[in-house]
Amino acid sequence: MTERPDSPHRPAGLSRRRLFGLLGAGTAGALAAGTAGGAIGRATAPDLATAAGATDAVPFVGAHQAGIVTPAQDRLHFVAFDVITDDRAELVGMLKAWTAAARRMTAGRDAGPVGAVAGSPYAPPDDTGEALGLAPSGLTLTVGFGPTLFTTADGADRFGLASRRPKPLAELPSFPGDAIEPAISGGDLCIQACANDPQVAVHAVRNLVRLGAGVVSVRWSQLGFGRTSSTSTGQATPRNLFGFKDGTNNLKAESDSALDRFVWVADGDPGGDWLAGGSYLVTRRIRMLIESWDTASLDEQERTIGRTKGTGAPRGQHGEFDPVDFTKQVDGEFAVPETSHVFLANPTNAGTAILRRGYSFVDGSDGLGRLDAGLFFIAYQRDPATGFVQVQRNLRADAMNEYIRHTSSAVFACPPGIRGADDWWGRALFSR
Amino acid sequence: MTERPDSPHRPAGLSRRRLFGLLGAGTAGALAAGTAGGAIGRATAPDLATAAGATDAVPFVGAHQAGIVTPAQDRLHFVAFDVITDDRAELVGMLKAWTAAARRMTAGRDAGPVGAVAGSPYAPPDDTGEALGLAPSGLTLTVGFGPTLFTTADGADRFGLASRRPKPLAELPSFPGDAIEPAISGGDLCIQACANDPQVAVHAVRNLVRLGAGVVSVRWSQLGFGRTSSTSTGQATPRNLFGFKDGTNNLKAESDSALDRFVWVADGDPGGDWLAGGSYLVTRRIRMLIESWDTASLDEQERTIGRTKGTGAPRGQHGEFDPVDFTKQVDGEFAVPETSHVFLANPTNAGTAILRRGYSFVDGSDGLGRLDAGLFFIAYQRDPATGFVQVQRNLRADAMNEYIRHTSSAVFACPPGIRGADDWWGRALFSR
Repeated sequence: MTERPDSPHRPAGLSRRRLFGLLGAGTAGALAAGTAGGAIGRATAPDLATAAGATDAVPFVGAHQAGIVTPAQDRLHFVAFDVITDDRAELVGMLKAWTAAARRMTAGRDAGPVGAVAGSPYAPPDDTGEALGLAPSGLTLTVGFGPTLFTTADGADRFGLASRRPKPLAELPSFPGDAIEPAISGGDLCIQACANDPQVAVHAVRNLVRLGAGVVSVRWSQLGFGRTSSTSTGQATPRNLFGFKDGTNNLKAESDSALDRFVWVADGDPGGDWLAGGSYLVTRRIRMLIESWDTASLDEQERTIGRTKGTGAPRGQHGEFDPVDFTKQVDGEFAVPETSHVFLANPTNAGTAILRRGYSFVDGSDGLGRLDAGLFFIAYQRDPATGFVQVQRNLRADAMNEYIRHTSSAVFACPPGIRGADDWWGRALFSR
Repeated sequence: MTERPDSPHRPAGLSRRRLFGLLGAGTAGALAAGTAGGAIGRATAPDLATAAGATDAVPFVGAHQAGIVTPAQDRLHFVAFDVITDDRAELVGMLKAWTAAARRMTAGRDAGPVGAVAGSPYAPPDDTGEALGLAPSGLTLTVGFGPTLFTTADGADRFGLASRRPKPLAELPSFPGDAIEPAISGGDLCIQACANDPQVAVHAVRNLVRLGAGVVSVRWSQLGFGRTSSTSTGQATPRNLFGFKDGTNNLKAESDSALDRFVWVADGDPGGDWLAGGSYLVTRRIRMLIESWDTASLDEQERTIGRTKGTGAPRGQHGEFDPVDFTKQVDGEFAVPETSHVFLANPTNAGTAILRRGYSFVDGSDGLGRLDAGLFFIAYQRDPATGFVQVQRNLRADAMNEYIRHTSSAVFACPPGIRGADDWWGRALFSR
């Protein structure tokens, strides 16, 4: 992960730290008075999201939500929520508050003033504080709506949204070998927080959780310590916990026509009235059976993936970006076996393409002496049926299946980007 | 965490990537032959641990183990092991293999050749591969021996070490409010892996686990995404998940006399025959009750810590590094309350000092809608009884106790540093 700079958005200008330093210099009295009542956040400073030099921030406003084709940041904090209120107005209120906080945090600001509201220190701070002094760090916050937000399992129309559910937003089918744990699957809402500093991602999720108190409850969450995909041609392909480069042929931000075909929901698609410009998000927590893999021979590992471990080249080729040659034979056998992951996941053979954006995780150990580690798979697509589901069905014969278990599954519809200062997450969905 | 560079050890010279690139250029044939049998690792390259420019690596050899007073790296992977063999020779063999691999990996190399052993691709690789291309990233690997390595709970002398157990290496006492889970506590051995790239730390632990197959089993492990302590005067104080700067007055690498007094075991201390130059490591997984904290008023939060949230200054002062003034009163009350964490943990009041080296963690959520987050506390000291235990007893009245729960506890004796090319972890302990 060192080929690209550690933070592509590293501050050329005003960071949280710098900003706070400025405040400290200019308003030392107010700061010291923080203990005795004054606001100590950055709310009194001019709006710095637009200040020259704040290039370390990824724009929050745009046609599409940030965090999809944004060059994949290094760290992930993903959280899925259950909505615990029955009150549509409360839900809408929270989505508005989330949008406002996301707008601030992605610009490198606090979620709200750290100091006391209305001049009183006897209220909780509107920001939890752990990101004070940190740069925006490329933070993106991407929201998604799960099928259960529209219709509960027993068919109830919880928030008057049942008629607005686009047909592709449906629970994923079961696949052979699935070991899905319901408690860490699904969800009414999700937030994907990506940043180049994990504390910035954690801070963002934590403050959205705080703002959602009484409206949502954390259903499950997942940290990822290292990106496993490149989503831009400027990024090196990282290695996953199998030690291989995977996803070399991922869709990239630069291929507009492919993104329009495979990633973005179009006007005429189901749900296009509120979802056009959005995308469907599929997450799968894929436990890797590290210990089995580590005792497999190099030959077995390379045949399983279809690439060489060292260079990342397709078997039979020399460089990582050499085209995969499915016809090439070595010693009378196909260099890229028909059961290899590269063969089966390749767009040519899968008949479709998805934008992968996954992260490696280690969640401690499993009580049986093994590391609980793997890939938190994230994919964006225009329709799950012709995206992830089609790819995954094609992987039935994947030799890699021996070394992995899917333990969590979820699907969400991610609305299009925030259009301007008054827009909020879900406005087009909830405003009719 | 942005005040210091993202990687203080960022390659001035040969990184894993660079090294691999060189190999790739020079031995393209051998690389391509990887699929057909050749070794593809870096074993054929000259020993690069001593190459000029490899300054991104922290020296593995020294009077003390690296990873104690080494400026705290950003990321942590900590793992505790149970020894599952009864054979002392097997244990010694593994410690030697671990030392050899640690020597390579801390220098930015693989744990062993990635390619096939003895020219055969039909053996598992000697390195798992996911750190290929990554810089050394300041990796340190620090080993510790738990009390149960010397004597089992029922008094059995497992490996002939019972008489070598220094008296201070004993299970920690219980403290009021403890909620210790035995399954994630204790351990016969531990490895603390710290690095500025989490994948480098994870890779190191994973390869040591692999090398320990049949000898040790992972008992528990913990990832930390962000350092919460500074261990050098050149480092900024980071914020913990309470949003506060804590540990401003931590012991620092530069204060030699304090380290000799409070951190390093001396010749005349118990166990000094093998432990002199080493230190005792105490770990405590401290769950923070984030949701309770986030609903506490700013005033309550600042009184609990004894510092202001914005600047990190002691209450009643202006700058983070202003001395704590325990006599200062504001509005007729002590600015730093006697129940505050700063008051009770301060060396003046605790009567001792420890070197703190903890990391923030988020381990998903707890099934009750709350983030499972907190501080993985790590402290090094010359004697746990006059170090952590004394400090912790002093914190009985700590107002912070309302917001935390200690869920894991462990203590280890960390031997002194590796002295030269033939030395190995535990030699002085096992060689008599």
